[in-house]
Amino acid sequence: MEKLKQRILSEGKNLGNGILKIDSVINHQVDSTLMLEAGAEFARRFADTRPTRILTAEVSGIIPAMATAYAMGVPFVYARKHKPVTMQEPVFVEFAPSHTKGGTVSLMVSPEFLAAEDRVLIIDDFLATGNTIAAMARIIESAGATLVGIGTLVEKSFETGRAALAHLNVPIESLVIIEAMSDDGRIQIRA
Amino acid sequence: MEKLKQRILSEGKNLGNGILKIDSVINHQVDSTLMLEAGAEFARRFADTRPTRILTAEVSGIIPAMATAYAMGVPFVYARKHKPVTMQEPVFVEFAPSHTKGGTVSLMVSPEFLAAEDRVLIIDDFLATGNTIAAMARIIESAGATLVGIGTLVEKSFETGRAALAHLNVPIESLVIIEAMSDDGRIQIRA
Repeated sequence: MEKLKQRILSEGKNLGNGILKIDSVINHQVDSTLMLEAGAEFARRFADTRPTRILTAEVSGIIPAMATAYAMGVPFVYARKHKPVTMQEPVFVEFAPSHTKGGTVSLMVSPEFLAAEDRVLIIDDFLATGNTIAAMARIIESAGATLVGIGTLVEKSFETGRAALAHLNVPIESLVIIEAMSDDGRIQIRA
Repeated sequence: MEKLKQRILSEGKNLGNGILKIDSVINHQVDSTLMLEAGAEFARRFADTRPTRILTAEVSGIIPAMATAYAMGVPFVYARKHKPVTMQEPVFVEFAPSHTKGGTVSLMVSPEFLAAEDRVLIIDDFLATGNTIAAMARIIESAGATLVGIGTLVEKSFETGRAALAHLNVPIESLVIIEAMSDDGRIQIRA
């Protein structure tokens, strides 16, 4: 997606250790118009998968998931990392090691919002190691639902996410693919 | 907003102690279409305030803020509760006691996304005690920016939020106002 690529090239900051700061577009300040365009692009790419529900993880995944859900006319569910007082037992829970936060994050989804007959499209902001997305895929499996695709705004192809998710055997679409982030601060994006 | 009111009446659950569970609409599963309609309604109500930026707090505030920002054609910023590795010092930080989570939450905003010349509209999911919104108003004040209005999806008028925010002297708009949540599980909404 050319517009997102240009924004990352002009505003993204390579903080080293593979950490990309795109706080002006998605991770702190958000360009809603650009995100709704990204949602429409995911809807186009995943039209054939006919999802009934979109799953993402709080916090930043909510933004592209909302845009995609709107474009596809289906609800989205965001896995909670902290259990709110309104979340009642039992829940589906999985754990994922976090590269950017350190430690392990828990992801929780209420069974009332993930049914065995659901066809689920996972949408998230980043595809890096794939750990968070793999945890969401396990939740979908626990629910007996069907994973139909994985879409992310930004993939870091120099990490191992795509290979780690290959066994899920679903289409993986990323709107921007970063091939390298060198120590001199450059960000190399696939043409 | 009639449609949101009907959804709360049909799907909302009164969990006691003033806690409303609307997990099927906004706090876990999200109806993006309804939320974009809510954003358009906020845009209509706050058109005269001419905001340059919308401020909200993660997690659930992101949803109505994104919808409103899209409708008004301005960026939105979500105050972070946990400092991500991409957030660089210095930051504006304020603290708010949390009714639903217990303890105190911290809210952090990068100065690069809140300038003295900004006219800021606060959008959030709930207006209850007003503590979180008051903390956001203090961040706006620290930045030397101008608060122009406060919009929430759901206000619990039996809590003290509106009175606690009155000194800010800006319009406060809530799309649904809940007047009482009785111990027998009823939810009474203002007509």
